[in-house]
Amino acid sequence: MISFRVDGRSGVPAYLQIVQQVRQALRMGALDMGDQLPSVREVVAAVVVNPNTVLKAYRELEREGLVEARAGAGTFVRARPPGPPPSTYSPLGRSLARWVSEARSAGLDDEAIESLLQLTLRAAHLREGIA
Amino acid sequence: MISFRVDGRSGVPAYLQIVQQVRQALRMGALDMGDQLPSVREVVAAVVVNPNTVLKAYRELEREGLVEARAGAGTFVRARPPGPPPSTYSPLGRSLARWVSEARSAGLDDEAIESLLQLTLRAAHLREGIA
Repeated sequence: MISFRVDGRSGVPAYLQIVQQVRQALRMGALDMGDQLPSVREVVAAVVVNPNTVLKAYRELEREGLVEARAGAGTFVRARPPGPPPSTYSPLGRSLARWVSEARSAGLDDEAIESLLQLTLRAAHLREGIA
Repeated sequence: MISFRVDGRSGVPAYLQIVQQVRQALRMGALDMGDQLPSVREVVAAVVVNPNTVLKAYRELEREGLVEARAGAGTFVRARPPGPPPSTYSPLGRSLARWVSEARSAGLDDEAIESLLQLTLRAAHLREGIA
């Protein structure tokens, strides 16, 4: 079953971190059709987060059509977000891990790495004219 | 002079986006000692953001010792954040740009790319025992 991490320093609201982690698990195949999400109680026991935060995340995922709540049973995956199949991610993940290892060896911390990605994505958009 | 981008969909508070962009410009050498930051008025004219948001960002940067406000003159860079020299960033930026280009060709959108980086950073931390 998926487990969540909530980083209080990232600036991203906790509910949105949970939403993004479910979406990414679906993209990468770590979660699949019919899989059950942990109950609110289980999430709250594992992560320092308010029950309402988890509910808000699950409601957002339901609104997007990715999960459905079944009364008395729990919350289950009903669709994958659009995008390439999970098999796409392994080779990209491996090459990104090599790059991250190089960047960290050069002394970049997480914020420097994340900021460099932001700049790189923005440059890619500008080149494609979809800034 | 540095120009800011504020992405309302990222979930990261606008003031923090400005803080991070100044820090990254300092790391990469796009901003250097003595350089002047745009005035609050200039930022507000260029980006859809509240003057108080810009003030909050500049105050945070001042608190970190990276910039100083000079009465009647403006806000100026007074230090770089810790980390490797700006020359470190060019080769890493180029290799990251190649990776991003590959990921986008494979169909990954920005959120998928950013989430993959989060997972990769977390895996790197876990390997080093500093999760």
